[in-house]
Amino acid sequence: MIKKKLEKIDEIIKEFKPVKREETTPEFLKVKAYNYTLNNGEVQKREQIIKGSKEGSAVIIVPYIGDNLLLVIEPRVFTKKGVCVGFPAGYIEDNETPLVAALRELQEETGLVPESLVEVDSFYQDEGCSSAFNHIFIAYNCKKQYEQHLDEGEYIKYMEFTVDEAFELEKLGYINSSNSKLALSKVRKKV
Amino acid sequence: MIKKKLEKIDEIIKEFKPVKREETTPEFLKVKAYNYTLNNGEVQKREQIIKGSKEGSAVIIVPYIGDNLLLVIEPRVFTKKGVCVGFPAGYIEDNETPLVAALRELQEETGLVPESLVEVDSFYQDEGCSSAFNHIFIAYNCKKQYEQHLDEGEYIKYMEFTVDEAFELEKLGYINSSNSKLALSKVRKKV
Repeated sequence: MIKKKLEKIDEIIKEFKPVKREETTPEFLKVKAYNYTLNNGEVQKREQIIKGSKEGSAVIIVPYIGDNLLLVIEPRVFTKKGVCVGFPAGYIEDNETPLVAALRELQEETGLVPESLVEVDSFYQDEGCSSAFNHIFIAYNCKKQYEQHLDEGEYIKYMEFTVDEAFELEKLGYINSSNSKLALSKVRKKV
Repeated sequence: MIKKKLEKIDEIIKEFKPVKREETTPEFLKVKAYNYTLNNGEVQKREQIIKGSKEGSAVIIVPYIGDNLLLVIEPRVFTKKGVCVGFPAGYIEDNETPLVAALRELQEETGLVPESLVEVDSFYQDEGCSSAFNHIFIAYNCKKQYEQHLDEGEYIKYMEFTVDEAFELEKLGYINSSNSKLALSKVRKKV
């Protein structure tokens, strides 16, 4: 990867790095607990994470601009570096199909609109304590059509990389979440 | 895959299927909320999942018995089928390294002891709202040396599969979690 690109990433990481925190009251995440009776008569207590009164299912989008990929850089305050590089992603809203959510999230976070949008995989995010079921989409032939349009308190920058550079970012630990790693595993390496 | 094996899996799924639930009080999962100040002066509210007063980091183990893989089947009450097929896995306990946790979890869930145990990947489970950082290990040349030794309220059965059968189970949707899918992506397909 050209040195300038890594320097640019590190600059954004420095900008987004959390420097202070104050505890406040949870409003988004909730916990439910149940005693489940299994078909064999055994009872199992399990606890469930609820996100904004929903399961918390999300979409992850792999956006191609020509042969290149677009990655986003955003604060991830609970990680070691405080900032992660990954693919655009977000929660599926009420009455949205995964495809509609993917189109919306891609547009909001990057302003891109794809020529085609194909679901390539889906999986439980944290099967022991959540019903969240995530969907990976590949967005082909994206064109910049809108300005970035973020929610309040959302800070996201994006950059274009070659496929090889994206795999290098994974190897260097910049791409380090299950969502983005699984999405990247769907990208074919150049031979 | 031989029909008998799929029938055996479906039999276990039937046995473990949740049939009833009653709400009770959460004890394991907790939620914290913070206002984070970023280096650029912006403030971001983020909420964190706490598992048993810890981050909830886990290990996932890919156990080889000769050329075959061992998979576990267990109740996953928040999933559609209520039961998942996947790799042995569990939370890292206090004062454990990921390697020690992997050795312990493999032994508890399956009675297996490997000849070697190699970490092949690691990742954040849910980077937006958790510090949980999971580790994937490959356990080579496992031998059955102990009886299964489960925690109270834990119900796990295990079965041996060829590598091809494991990928077939992913395709059929039996292996459907980010943890087990990422672990399976580290297994080399037979050519």
